[in-house]
Amino acid sequence: MRRPGIIFDLDGTVYLGDRLIPGARETVQWLRQHDHPIVFVSNKPLQSRADYAAKLTRLDIPTRPDEVINSSLVLVRYMSREMPGAAVYPVGEPPLLEELTAAGFRISEDRDEIEVVVASFDRSFDYRKLDIAFQALRRGARFLATNADATCPVEGGEIPDAGAVIGALEGCSKREVELVVGKPSPLIVEVAIEQLGRRADECLMVGDRVETDILMGQRAGMTTALVLTGVTRREDLAGAPVRPDHVLGSITEVPRLFSSEDVTRDP
Amino acid sequence: MRRPGIIFDLDGTVYLGDRLIPGARETVQWLRQHDHPIVFVSNKPLQSRADYAAKLTRLDIPTRPDEVINSSLVLVRYMSREMPGAAVYPVGEPPLLEELTAAGFRISEDRDEIEVVVASFDRSFDYRKLDIAFQALRRGARFLATNADATCPVEGGEIPDAGAVIGALEGCSKREVELVVGKPSPLIVEVAIEQLGRRADECLMVGDRVETDILMGQRAGMTTALVLTGVTRREDLAGAPVRPDHVLGSITEVPRLFSSEDVTRDP
Repeated sequence: MRRPGIIFDLDGTVYLGDRLIPGARETVQWLRQHDHPIVFVSNKPLQSRADYAAKLTRLDIPTRPDEVINSSLVLVRYMSREMPGAAVYPVGEPPLLEELTAAGFRISEDRDEIEVVVASFDRSFDYRKLDIAFQALRRGARFLATNADATCPVEGGEIPDAGAVIGALEGCSKREVELVVGKPSPLIVEVAIEQLGRRADECLMVGDRVETDILMGQRAGMTTALVLTGVTRREDLAGAPVRPDHVLGSITEVPRLFSSEDVTRDP
Repeated sequence: MRRPGIIFDLDGTVYLGDRLIPGARETVQWLRQHDHPIVFVSNKPLQSRADYAAKLTRLDIPTRPDEVINSSLVLVRYMSREMPGAAVYPVGEPPLLEELTAAGFRISEDRDEIEVVVASFDRSFDYRKLDIAFQALRRGARFLATNADATCPVEGGEIPDAGAVIGALEGCSKREVELVVGKPSPLIVEVAIEQLGRRADECLMVGDRVETDILMGQRAGMTTALVLTGVTRREDLAGAPVRPDHVLGSITEVPRLFSSEDVTRDP
């Protein structure tokens, strides 16, 4: 039997900002020693997979870029398949633009030429960008998004994420975003299981958010484990729309789920 | 019997951008000579009532500032009654800020102090403004808007209006705007009929938009007349959610509605 693949959410699961969750390093090490393939997934399009891998490595979890999947990567893979070489207007930050350019897409601000508008997390969002994207949408450009998170947690609070950009564009264009590739989209699952070399039912999804991590894992047919080190508290679970298979105090409890060669579910 | 009061929408009804609709001047003159009180209403918060009056006067329709009602005026009146002197963060342009300041409101960028966030049409909207408004909303500030128009017509097309700002703030705060004072809100009707000195059922609402002008007039119990010189075409009317009492080629057909002392409805 093959060892189950593990999909780890990052912020709130493996680390909190710049601090590793206590025991995360040993847990990943144990899973790797026991031949569990691992990928790390993030909705955040502000860093490249190489940046994430470097951060994990710096935090003493040695990681290769191809072990990291973020929403901009999933978007670029989808677009490369469906609309290779298209003229794109991304409302996003430099790492997204670089990823698009590297994949052969042409960044354009010409409203008559733009074929795809990408809404993303963008701390330099302004009326000029809003207007360019709006004019392109009005002329029929496709309307995609890296992720749909309302906010992004930061030191001492949270700040507006891609949900604000999507809201602004929907509010003026009266169009709805067609596709959001980030969690809980099945597209990010597809990239993850391909990387893991496992079927979805041979995977464990571990994350701190019910409405993205757990929902996505469950929809895909994975076993799911919620950790309580991020945004979700135990008391939030009563009203949650989906129930994780396991609720863990932290990532350190993941190894005890593997008492046999298979992922065991709580009775 | 008192002569009916007339509420004219401006852009698309009286003028288009900087050009008067042919015959508008003579029509307003005829109505004034026949003792119909008149007000002009606009959702646009980019100019003060004095600016609008000056523009109409320049276009040869002599108008006093108190004959003009725009969404920022209605907002400031509402706020003066409900929350006098409050600390406000307006996402809007200088004329709105001036109107708020003149009415005794304090403009604040301190997220802990802001009591009211106002979403408006703002061509200088950016992430910094978005974040300040978001943080205030997250801490419980009231959430008002001058108008909810998706777009504003401009020479050669349209640009994102307050609908984009509302969408952005709703998208990150996960709160809904509490009150929009512009058309079709009953608050703008209230200010208009007070100015006209007429009851709502003694008024004729004339405008080019079914979903704002006509809807508002009808809800208030006014007679309504749609003009075809603006955004609505005759063929759009089949699917429209409300039916105007009259459909007119242009403002010049308004006088023929007054064959007796009363507003007559089409058979």
